[in-house]
Amino acid sequence: MTVIKSNHENHAADDSVGVVETRQVELFTADDPLHLECGTEFAPVTLAYETYGTLSEARDNAILICHALSGDAHAAGVHSPEDPKPGWWDRMIGPGKAFDTEKYFVICSNVLGGCKGSTGPSTNSPRMDKPHALGFPMVTIHDMVVAQKRLVEHLGIDRLLSVTGGSMGGMQALDWTVSFPDSVVSAIPIATTYRLSAQGIAFNEVGRQAIFADPHWNNGDYYGAEPPDVGLALARMIGHITYLSDKSMHEKFGRDLRYRDKYAYDFQQEFQVESYLHYQGEKFIKRFDANTYLYLTKAMDYFDLVDGYHSLTESLKRATAKFLMIAFTSDWLFPAAQNKQIANALRTNGSDVTYVEIRSDYGHDAFLLEFEELTKLISAFLGFLYEEKAVQ
Amino acid sequence: MTVIKSNHENHAADDSVGVVETRQVELFTADDPLHLECGTEFAPVTLAYETYGTLSEARDNAILICHALSGDAHAAGVHSPEDPKPGWWDRMIGPGKAFDTEKYFVICSNVLGGCKGSTGPSTNSPRMDKPHALGFPMVTIHDMVVAQKRLVEHLGIDRLLSVTGGSMGGMQALDWTVSFPDSVVSAIPIATTYRLSAQGIAFNEVGRQAIFADPHWNNGDYYGAEPPDVGLALARMIGHITYLSDKSMHEKFGRDLRYRDKYAYDFQQEFQVESYLHYQGEKFIKRFDANTYLYLTKAMDYFDLVDGYHSLTESLKRATAKFLMIAFTSDWLFPAAQNKQIANALRTNGSDVTYVEIRSDYGHDAFLLEFEELTKLISAFLGFLYEEKAVQ
Repeated sequence: MTVIKSNHENHAADDSVGVVETRQVELFTADDPLHLECGTEFAPVTLAYETYGTLSEARDNAILICHALSGDAHAAGVHSPEDPKPGWWDRMIGPGKAFDTEKYFVICSNVLGGCKGSTGPSTNSPRMDKPHALGFPMVTIHDMVVAQKRLVEHLGIDRLLSVTGGSMGGMQALDWTVSFPDSVVSAIPIATTYRLSAQGIAFNEVGRQAIFADPHWNNGDYYGAEPPDVGLALARMIGHITYLSDKSMHEKFGRDLRYRDKYAYDFQQEFQVESYLHYQGEKFIKRFDANTYLYLTKAMDYFDLVDGYHSLTESLKRATAKFLMIAFTSDWLFPAAQNKQIANALRTNGSDVTYVEIRSDYGHDAFLLEFEELTKLISAFLGFLYEEKAVQ
Repeated sequence: MTVIKSNHENHAADDSVGVVETRQVELFTADDPLHLECGTEFAPVTLAYETYGTLSEARDNAILICHALSGDAHAAGVHSPEDPKPGWWDRMIGPGKAFDTEKYFVICSNVLGGCKGSTGPSTNSPRMDKPHALGFPMVTIHDMVVAQKRLVEHLGIDRLLSVTGGSMGGMQALDWTVSFPDSVVSAIPIATTYRLSAQGIAFNEVGRQAIFADPHWNNGDYYGAEPPDVGLALARMIGHITYLSDKSMHEKFGRDLRYRDKYAYDFQQEFQVESYLHYQGEKFIKRFDANTYLYLTKAMDYFDLVDGYHSLTESLKRATAKFLMIAFTSDWLFPAAQNKQIANALRTNGSDVTYVEIRSDYGHDAFLLEFEELTKLISAFLGFLYEEKAVQ
């Protein structure tokens, strides 16, 4: 039996997975396509992914990390020794960390529809020899999960020890537990919801409208030309307000001015909070594709675990995983109450679920920031599963 | 002494002020200009206003209503017998209503910088013989109040029985109490704040950026050409999300679809909540000027009652009015806690203040919707002042 080795070298800090590379794999074929929920049959699908740690002989120590709206496959480590920016969840993944790469084989892949190496609107349509753009079919959270399942199988893994993610990543983790119950021992959905609220849909829609309104968007056909940077930056600015709490914004910026003690009385960015939003917008357009933003926000809008069922309880009856559900008190985009609803439904079903509400002022962003609290909870939860496995 | 008569006729329902007209008055002169906070001297200033009810012989029954961001001078009644749409606070103003026109002389004026008859960026600059556009000076909440004071003087009134308003209108009411303490017997600030939060500034800034991003905005110089409707509609859509609560959005729209039982899997408006936002955006562009949106949101951003003082308590020491402060439990744009802070500071100063938090799911919009609760509170508060006055 071949042991899949981690793709990291050991040149970095003790608790880093070190230098890693993003790999790509082509999945599905014309004869065996991905059946999307929208009705389209799609193939091939390239998924970009990274792995950290070593897959055990028994292939029973794999954990899948699902990323949020703006994430990618690069969850941990660096891409070169000089790379100053580690992966998006680096503080959670590595030797001795929550997702301990001494114990677990950790996988993270860019979602279907993404723009960081996986097939999406910005990748070439083999048929057309140009980017799909709006010709890309609409994808759902479930479609992303079906593609991930194929990747996991490709890596020789039948059953994941755990699947986790925050926000849109949490939606994927939830979908895994009901779509492939036999393939997940446990799930750790964080700061998520079983269906996006009207407010969530509303914020996504104004973000999309900001992109549509940019003349450079050109009905999605902007590849090779100037992209709709203004619209995408604006969508990101709107998003960022929803990721922070009122309190964290107050503490971080208050009414502080950028340069002066007195108001300038003009329409430039005067307040620190304005400057912060513009900075986030500018940073985002350098690394993200506007059409992917459209597709992924729609995927979130469509997500509804109750779809086709009479109740959340009925829907979650399919799940057999052990759950650790984590929410944050100041998250108003995916409020704790919505996470608790899931935990309560699981409890009603007699499922094994631990629900924790972390006190945090960081708002929705807490899932990327409250790593100390998250580490305590996740280490204990996974450690217990790991020990249990050893005993068997 | 001339009694100023109400400008309504009595053809409408018993509790309506009937047909009213918006009047305009020119205030300030080159020799006696409006000294704006930004340093500019500005004259003349036209203010559009309406009045309802009759000014008493003693000129002591006048109440000034201050409107919010998208409001205007037309607070009550109709503009013609066929007019289907009464003023924006019609349910609050009229015979027997909260602002009882049988007792009180009610005034409402379009703010300085507005686009409904008062001098603002869309009105002609006499010097240039074309709209001011971005040549219009930046105005503040205090500037609006100074202009209103002159209007009130023009109407022959030294002292208002009360000044009230919700949201940006509440900011004006608060400014009145500290800028002209001898001119206000009482104040009823509703769903407001003593300074806009970082989150509030952030939402305003993305609204402005939506307008700036519209090519038709043309650096504010769009009069006589196609206006930046797409940008203004988008700004309004963003605003509307903040005016509703998560709960009211859920109850009003949930995840209901517009036409179909099944997802269309396209980028059209599928969800009811999307359709609602688009409708609000479309409605708004027919009646509002994009540059005014820019100026008024900046005025809100600049509002800080503590500016120039060490504390809110110190700032509010100037106020001598009796206060009725009203907040709504589900208002997350101007949270109850921010209203309570004002009440607490007034209480610390030994001021006469009643603070009420109305349980409501309507969010910030509650000040336009919870008229029954508002009526009870305001009728009692004003009635007491009215009786007190009669006894004297």
